[in-house]
Amino acid sequence: MAAQEKPWGGRFKEATSKKVEAYTESISFDTKMYKQDIMGSKAHAVMLAEQGILTKEEAEILCSGLDRVLEEIESGKLVWKQELEDVHMNIETRLTELVGEVGKKLHTGRSRNDQCCLDLRLYTSDCLRLWEELAKNLIAVLVDKAEENQGVLLPGCTHMQPAQPVSLAHHLLAYAWMFKRDAERICACERRARISPLGAAALAGTTYNLNPQSVAEQLNMYGVFKNSMDTVADRDYVLEALFTGSVIMMHLSRFCEELIWWANPQFAFIYLSDAHSTGSSIMPQKKNPDVAEIMRGKTGRTYGNLMNLLTTLKGLPLTYNRDLQEDKIPFMDTDKTVRTSLSIMAEMLQGIRFRADKMEKALKAGFLNATELADYLVTKGIPFREAHHITGRAVALAEDRGVGLEELSLQDFNHLCDPYHIQVTDDVYVVLDYFTAVKRRNASGGTGPVSVKNQLDELKVWLAAQC
Amino acid sequence: MAAQEKPWGGRFKEATSKKVEAYTESISFDTKMYKQDIMGSKAHAVMLAEQGILTKEEAEILCSGLDRVLEEIESGKLVWKQELEDVHMNIETRLTELVGEVGKKLHTGRSRNDQCCLDLRLYTSDCLRLWEELAKNLIAVLVDKAEENQGVLLPGCTHMQPAQPVSLAHHLLAYAWMFKRDAERICACERRARISPLGAAALAGTTYNLNPQSVAEQLNMYGVFKNSMDTVADRDYVLEALFTGSVIMMHLSRFCEELIWWANPQFAFIYLSDAHSTGSSIMPQKKNPDVAEIMRGKTGRTYGNLMNLLTTLKGLPLTYNRDLQEDKIPFMDTDKTVRTSLSIMAEMLQGIRFRADKMEKALKAGFLNATELADYLVTKGIPFREAHHITGRAVALAEDRGVGLEELSLQDFNHLCDPYHIQVTDDVYVVLDYFTAVKRRNASGGTGPVSVKNQLDELKVWLAAQC
Amino acid sequence: MAAQEKPWGGRFKEATSKKVEAYTESISFDTKMYKQDIMGSKAHAVMLAEQGILTKEEAEILCSGLDRVLEEIESGKLVWKQELEDVHMNIETRLTELVGEVGKKLHTGRSRNDQCCLDLRLYTSDCLRLWEELAKNLIAVLVDKAEENQGVLLPGCTHMQPAQPVSLAHHLLAYAWMFKRDAERICACERRARISPLGAAALAGTTYNLNPQSVAEQLNMYGVFKNSMDTVADRDYVLEALFTGSVIMMHLSRFCEELIWWANPQFAFIYLSDAHSTGSSIMPQKKNPDVAEIMRGKTGRTYGNLMNLLTTLKGLPLTYNRDLQEDKIPFMDTDKTVRTSLSIMAEMLQGIRFRADKMEKALKAGFLNATELADYLVTKGIPFREAHHITGRAVALAEDRGVGLEELSLQDFNHLCDPYHIQVTDDVYVVLDYFTAVKRRNASGGTGPVSVKNQLDELKVWLAAQC
Amino acid sequence: MAAQEKPWGGRFKEATSKKVEAYTESISFDTKMYKQDIMGSKAHAVMLAEQGILTKEEAEILCSGLDRVLEEIESGKLVWKQELEDVHMNIETRLTELVGEVGKKLHTGRSRNDQCCLDLRLYTSDCLRLWEELAKNLIAVLVDKAEENQGVLLPGCTHMQPAQPVSLAHHLLAYAWMFKRDAERICACERRARISPLGAAALAGTTYNLNPQSVAEQLNMYGVFKNSMDTVADRDYVLEALFTGSVIMMHLSRFCEELIWWANPQFAFIYLSDAHSTGSSIMPQKKNPDVAEIMRGKTGRTYGNLMNLLTTLKGLPLTYNRDLQEDKIPFMDTDKTVRTSLSIMAEMLQGIRFRADKMEKALKAGFLNATELADYLVTKGIPFREAHHITGRAVALAEDRGVGLEELSLQDFNHLCDPYHIQVTDDVYVVLDYFTAVKRRNASGGTGPVSVKNQLDELKVWLAAQC
Repeated sequence: MAAQEKPWGGRFKEATSKKVEAYTESISFDTKMYKQDIMGSKAHAVMLAEQGILTKEEAEILCSGLDRVLEEIESGKLVWKQELEDVHMNIETRLTELVGEVGKKLHTGRSRNDQCCLDLRLYTSDCLRLWEELAKNLIAVLVDKAEENQGVLLPGCTHMQPAQPVSLAHHLLAYAWMFKRDAERICACERRARISPLGAAALAGTTYNLNPQSVAEQLNMYGVFKNSMDTVADRDYVLEALFTGSVIMMHLSRFCEELIWWANPQFAFIYLSDAHSTGSSIMPQKKNPDVAEIMRGKTGRTYGNLMNLLTTLKGLPLTYNRDLQEDKIPFMDTDKTVRTSLSIMAEMLQGIRFRADKMEKALKAGFLNATELADYLVTKGIPFREAHHITGRAVALAEDRGVGLEELSLQDFNHLCDPYHIQVTDDVYVVLDYFTAVKRRNASGGTGPVSVKNQLDELKVWLAAQC
Repeated sequence: MAAQEKPWGGRFKEATSKKVEAYTESISFDTKMYKQDIMGSKAHAVMLAEQGILTKEEAEILCSGLDRVLEEIESGKLVWKQELEDVHMNIETRLTELVGEVGKKLHTGRSRNDQCCLDLRLYTSDCLRLWEELAKNLIAVLVDKAEENQGVLLPGCTHMQPAQPVSLAHHLLAYAWMFKRDAERICACERRARISPLGAAALAGTTYNLNPQSVAEQLNMYGVFKNSMDTVADRDYVLEALFTGSVIMMHLSRFCEELIWWANPQFAFIYLSDAHSTGSSIMPQKKNPDVAEIMRGKTGRTYGNLMNLLTTLKGLPLTYNRDLQEDKIPFMDTDKTVRTSLSIMAEMLQGIRFRADKMEKALKAGFLNATELADYLVTKGIPFREAHHITGRAVALAEDRGVGLEELSLQDFNHLCDPYHIQVTDDVYVVLDYFTAVKRRNASGGTGPVSVKNQLDELKVWLAAQC
Repeated sequence: MAAQEKPWGGRFKEATSKKVEAYTESISFDTKMYKQDIMGSKAHAVMLAEQGILTKEEAEILCSGLDRVLEEIESGKLVWKQELEDVHMNIETRLTELVGEVGKKLHTGRSRNDQCCLDLRLYTSDCLRLWEELAKNLIAVLVDKAEENQGVLLPGCTHMQPAQPVSLAHHLLAYAWMFKRDAERICACERRARISPLGAAALAGTTYNLNPQSVAEQLNMYGVFKNSMDTVADRDYVLEALFTGSVIMMHLSRFCEELIWWANPQFAFIYLSDAHSTGSSIMPQKKNPDVAEIMRGKTGRTYGNLMNLLTTLKGLPLTYNRDLQEDKIPFMDTDKTVRTSLSIMAEMLQGIRFRADKMEKALKAGFLNATELADYLVTKGIPFREAHHITGRAVALAEDRGVGLEELSLQDFNHLCDPYHIQVTDDVYVVLDYFTAVKRRNASGGTGPVSVKNQLDELKVWLAAQC
Repeated sequence: MAAQEKPWGGRFKEATSKKVEAYTESISFDTKMYKQDIMGSKAHAVMLAEQGILTKEEAEILCSGLDRVLEEIESGKLVWKQELEDVHMNIETRLTELVGEVGKKLHTGRSRNDQCCLDLRLYTSDCLRLWEELAKNLIAVLVDKAEENQGVLLPGCTHMQPAQPVSLAHHLLAYAWMFKRDAERICACERRARISPLGAAALAGTTYNLNPQSVAEQLNMYGVFKNSMDTVADRDYVLEALFTGSVIMMHLSRFCEELIWWANPQFAFIYLSDAHSTGSSIMPQKKNPDVAEIMRGKTGRTYGNLMNLLTTLKGLPLTYNRDLQEDKIPFMDTDKTVRTSLSIMAEMLQGIRFRADKMEKALKAGFLNATELADYLVTKGIPFREAHHITGRAVALAEDRGVGLEELSLQDFNHLCDPYHIQVTDDVYVVLDYFTAVKRRNASGGTGPVSVKNQLDELKVWLAAQC
C-alpha cells in the first residue's frame, strides 16, 4: 500500500517496507476486540449526537452501519486487511464503504490512542468477568466435593511429611478459599480496568465538547479518566490482570502438584477419570495425569506474560509509545490459559474418585497422632516442650518396631515418661484415635467437622450472593 | 548445638550440620520483624488470659517480660543467636530467661507456622502503610510543582516525537495520578494482608479454646483466617505487595527516564540540584543524574523479587513447606527499594529547576501546532482525513525551509489547499499559537488550564482526606 | 475419538473429554517441526535397516513414503487432525495410509519421548543457525555504516551526559561487537542443542540393537545422548536458546532506545527512511520510529519466554512430564521475534541517514573537550585531581556565559590556574579541538581513527571466515 | 562530605544529600571485590612502569602499598568509609595515606568505568571457577553413590507414573550428566568473563600509551576488549553467569523435589541423615527435609536475579549508566546461593541412606514390567500397537485383582491373546522379572548395567582431566 493511502501518509514519499508491515501489524490479534471496538464506537456516536456534534440521523446511520459490520464479522464475511493495520481501521473503513462519507465523521474528537485504550479496557474487563464466573464455578465444585468427603481423613502434611490428620473436606476447602481470594482480586481489578479513556484523544485531551461520562454510562463503566497523558500511557490494569491470572495459575499449580502425586501408585489417593488422563504409546500400564501436568506447566506462561509487559513498560517515557502495542498478546495468552484452566480443573475434579481406604492406610504409616500424644502428656502435667521430647522418643521406638503409636503398650509409654512421675493410662488410646484428633480441632478455621460445616455454609452464602 | 537441645530435637541423634545451620538460618533477616513478633505475642498472651488458659498474672508477667525484651532489642543489648534459628525462638528464649518457666507457656495453642505468618502479615502491612504515606507525600510534591508550572508549556510527545503542546503542570500531574492508583492498590493490598492467622496452629487448627477475633482486634487487623491449611500456606499478600511495589518502581522508572533525558544538554529542560547529582572523576563538565539512573535501575530488583516468590510458590503442595521461608528476603528488599525511592524522588523533585525557555524553544522546533492547523482546515469545510494530508505537506514544506509552521505565508497555505476551493486567512496564526492550542483542551482530563485546575483541586481534596 | 482408537487406549473405557483434547493438543504449533520429524524418521529407518532390524526394502518404502508425506505437507494437501494429538502421530498415520502395515514398523525401538526430543533439538538448532546468519548480516551492515562514518563525530555519553567526543563509526562498532558475542553464544548453544537423543526411548533406553551414532551422523549432529533419563527430561538447550535470544533482544533494545532519541527533533541525529517510520492519524507533523519502538517493546516477550520455561522446569521430577510440552511455544515465539528483529534492524539501518551537522552542534553544547583541558593542565605539571577541579570551574564559567570552553580567553584560563603558577598558552586551543581529542585515542579499542580501522579489519576477517 | 572534597566535585556548590549518599552507595557490597581491585591495580602499576609512564620505583612503592592495604583489609583494620563511595576510592585513598602523593598516580590512564569493569570481570570469573570445582565435587559424589547402587532398582517414572524399572545408579547419573553440562557452561562463561577492559577508560579509550595485553597476562585473562564504548556498557558476562546459576539451581530443584517425595513415608525410598533434617516444634514424629525444601525454594532467587539484571539492561543507551551499578547485588546473591547449594547438596547426598527394600516394593505395585510383556508379545508375532492393547487389558485385569502382572496365570495371558492364535508360555515369567528388564537395556545411555558402567567410566575420566 502506498504511504499516501495510509491515514497518516501526508508527508511520506516511500511506501512502508513489507517487512515493517508484518513486524508492526496487530491485525492478527486485535481483531479479537471487534465487539468492544464496535460497542465503543456506537457509544461514541450516540454521545456525539447528544452533544450536537453529529445530527441524530448521522448517529443512527453510524450505529446501524456498525451493527452491519458486526454482523459481517460474526458471520465471517468481513475480510480483515493487514494493510489497514488494525481492527479499528478495518472496521472504520468497512463502515465507510457501507454508509458513505458520514462514516468518516465517526472518528471526530477521538484518536486511535484513546480508542484502542477503550477497546482494551473493555476487553480486559469482559475477560475478567468471565474469570470470576469460572472461579466461582470451580469453588462450587470444591464445595460439593468437600461436602461429600467430610468423613474422609488423610494425612495433613507440612514439609511433605505427615503432620496431623485432616479431613479431605478441609483440605479441598483450602483451595476454595484461595480461589475466593482470586475472585475478589478479579473484581477489584475489573473495577480499575473498566474506566473510560475516551476524550483523552492522542495525548492532550480533545478540543471538542465531548461528554465522556455519557460514553462511560452507555458502556457500564465505573468512571472516566482524570489526565489524558496518563491515560494513553497507562497499562496498570493489564498488569494487574496479568498478575491476578498468575496467582490463579500458581494456586492451580499447587493443586495439580498434589493431584499428580496422589495419582502415583505409592499414594493412590485418587483415580482420575479416563476422560482426564491419557495413556502411553509404549507402556500399557500407564494412566497419566496429563491435564494436571500441563496445567502446572502452563503456570510458566502466565508468569512469563507478566514479566513480558513489566519489562516493556520499564523506563518508557510519556505518553503513548508503540512499545505499548505489545500489551495485548500477553494478556490474550494469559486469558486463554486462565479461562481454560479454571474450567477444566472444575470438570476434572468432578471426575475424580477419592480413595478413602488408601488415605486411611497412610494415616497409620505417618504417626499422624503424635501431636495428640504430646498434648495428652501436657494434660498429665508435663510441660509442652518436654512432652514433645518424650513423644519424639516414642515415635523413634515405634518406627524401630515398624508399628503405629497406637500399637505401643502402656508399659512402653510409662517407661518413656519415667523421669516425670506421671501415669499414662488406657485413655491414651482414645486420644490416639485419628477421628478424635480431627474432632478436637473444631475451633474456627480448623479441620474439625463443625468448623468445616461452617466453612461450607459461609462459602455457599457467598456463592449465592451477587458479586 | 546438639540436636537434643533444639526445640524439636527429641528423636534426633546427630547434630545439625554447621553448613545446614548457615544455609537454613533466617536470623539474619527475620529479626527485622521483632516488633511485630512481640506485639503478636503480647496479644496472644492477653487472649490466653481472657480465655482462662493462662491466669491474668501469668499474662501480665509475659507482657511485661516481652516489653523488657523489646527494650533490650531496641537498645542493642540483646544478642541474636543463630543456633536459636529465628527471631521467634530468640525472643521466647530470652523471655524465659527473664521471667522463668512461665515463659514457656506463651507458646500455648500456637505453632511457629501461624506465629511466623502473623509476624509477616503485620510486618508487610506496616510497610505498606509507610509506602502509602510516602506515595502521598510524593503526590503532594507533584501537586506543588504542577501548581507552580501551570503556565509553562513543553512538547507533549507520542513515540518520543513532539505531538501537541501540553502544560508542564499537566505532564507532572500524569505522574500524580499514577501514584494515586499505586496508593489505592497499596490500601487494597494492606487490607488483604492484615488478616490474623493465629489459631491455624501448625496446619490443622488448634485444640485450645482460643479467640482469634480478640487477637485480631488487639492488633488492628481486619479479620481472621478461614481455613487453617490455606492460611499457613498462603503468601498471596506478599505477592501482592511485591507486585504493587513493582508497579510503583515501573512508574518511577518512567519518570526517571524522562528526567535523565531532560537533563541532557540537547533538551536541558531541567537543572538537577547539586545535592541530587554527581560528577565524574575524569570528565569535569559532567553533572550526572545518578539518582534517577539508579532508581530506574532498581526497578529490575523489584521485578526480580516478584519473579522470585512466584517461582518459589509454583507447584508447592499444601501446607507449609520450608521453601516459604524464602518469602521475606524479596519482600524486605522490595520494601527498602520502594521506600527509599519514593522518598528520594520527592526530595529530588523539590530540587529540580525547570527551564521554561528551553521548553518553549523545543515547541517551535517540533511543529507542535500541526494538529491545530488540521483542525482549522476542518472548520473551513475540509474533511478531517484530507486536512491531515494537507497539513502533512505543510510540515514537509516548513521542514525543508527550516522554519516553523507559523512562519509559512498565507500564500503557502492557500497554495497547499488549492484543490479544495477554500481560503486560509489571517486567523490561522491565532490558531497556530501554542497557548491557544493548550487552552482549547479544557475538557475534563485535558491539558487546558481549567482542566489542570480541576485536577489540582481533586488531588488536594483526596490528599486531605483520610485513607 | 474413542479412547480405544488412541495409540495408548488399551485399558481406557471412557473417551477423552473434548476440552481436554483442546487443552492438551500440540498440533497447532508442533507441525512447524514437520521437516525435522520427517528427516529424523528417515534417518531412523535407514539405521534400522543398517542394523538388520528392518529389511533394506522396508526402509526404502518408509523413506519414500515419508518423502511423499513431506510433499503433501509442503503442498498443503495434508490435513492435520487434532484427534491424532501431535505432528508425530499425524505423520505416522498418513505414512501408514500411504505405505500400508510396514508404516507401523517405523516406530520400532523409539518412543514419542525421544522422537519429540530429536525433533525439537533439530528444530532449535536449525533456528539458531538462521539467527547466526542474521546476526552476521546485521554486523556486516554495521561495518558498512561505520566505514562510511569514520569522520563523523558525536558526543559520547556516560549517564546520558556528553562525556568525550567519539566517532560515529566507533559508536556503531560497539553494537557490532555485541552482536558478535551473540553470534558466538548462538554457535555454542547450537553445538549443545544438536545432540541426538534417539535411543533413549521412553526413559530407560531401548532393548533394540540400535546405532544412535548412525542417526546422529545422518543428521549432522555433534554427538549422542549419555543417559536416557536425563535426555528425555532435558530442556537445557531450549533455555540456552531462550537466554541467547533475550540477550540479542536486550542489545537491540539498547540500540533502538538510542535511535528513538536520535530521531527526536532535539537531537535530530538521524532521519529514518519513510519505509521504516509511520505517521499519526491525527498529528500530521509526526514521523514515528515505530519499528524501533516495537522492537524495544518485543524485548519483554523474549524475557517472558525465558521466565516461562524456567518456571515450568523448576521442581520438575524426572523424567518426562507433560509440563515439558510447554517448551515449544516460548521458543517458537522467541525465534520469530529474534529472527524478524535482526533482519528488520539491518534493513532499517541501511535506510538511516545520519546528520553530521546536528552531531557536531551537539559536541559544542556539551563541553565535550573538558577532559582534554584537564589532561592539558596535567602536562603543565598540575596533578590530575587538581586539574580536574580547575576544569570543573572552567566549565561552570563557560556555562554561565553560554559559551564553549574553546571560547574562553587565555586570561580566563590563567586566572583559574592562579594558585598553581603555570602558564596556559595558545596551544590549549589545539587541544580543545574535537578531532584532536578523538585522534589522541588511537590505542587499541579506543575511538581514534587507527583503532577504528583496526576494528573494521578484524570484523571483516571474522565475517569472511566460516563459523 | 562537602561536594568540593569529592573526586569529581569541582563545579558543585551544594553537598550531596545524605539520602542520596545512602541510596547510591555501593560500599556495602562492592568491598567484596577488594582482592580483585588490588590485583588489578598492581597489574596496572606494573604495566605503567613497563610503558615508562611511571618509574620502576614508583610502581614498586604502589605495589607494596597496595599489599599493605590488602593486609589491612584482611586483618579487619581498614575502616570502609561510605562517603568515599566505593571500594575503589577507599583503597586508593588509603594507599595515598600510606605512600603519599605517588598514590595519586596509580589512576593514570584509567577511569572508574574500566576499573570497576575489571574488578567485576575478575570477581565473576573467580566465582565461576569455584562453581566449577563445586559442581565437579557434586558429580564425584553422585558417581560414588551410583557406583554403590548399581544393583538397586526403582520405578522409573514418566508423568510421575511408574513406567519402567531403572537402576538407582542410572537415576543418580542422570543428575551427574546435568551437572556436567552445567560445568561446561560455567567454563564457557568464565572464558567470556575473563577479558580485560583496562584501557577503555571512561568510554572512549585512553590517551596514554598503555599496554592492555600486559595487564591481561598478569591477571591470567584470556584477552582484551575490542571497543571501549561497548566494554564499559557490557554486562553480558554477568547475565551469562546469572543464567548459568539459574540452570544449576533448576537442576538442583528437580533433584530436591525427588528427595522430598522420596522422604515422604508413602515412598520412604530414603532416610535423610539427622544432620540434614530438622524436626517440628509441635509434631514430634516429623523429620523434615528442610535443606532440600529451602534449596528448591532458593531457585526463585536465582531466577529473580536474572530477571533483575535483564530488566535493568533493557533499553539502556550507551555507554555507562549508573543503572549498571545494580549488577553486583544480583550476582553476589546468586553466587552465594549456587555456591552453598552445590556444596550442601554434595554433603547431604553423602548422608542419605537409600532403602532398596522400599524401592523394590514399589516396582511390584506399579506394573513396571508391562512394556516387557508387550515386547514379549511382539516376539510372538503380534504387531506392537496390538501387543500394547493386549497388555493394557492385562494391566486392567491385574489391577482389578490387586496383583502384579507376574501373578497372572498362563491361562489369563492366553485368554487375552485369543484373537491372535499365539501361545504364551512359561518363558513369559522370565521376561516379567525386573532385573531382566533392566539388563535388556544395555544399549549406550540405557539403564542396563553395562551402560551404567560405561557412564561411570566416562565421568571418572572427565573428573580426572583438567578443565
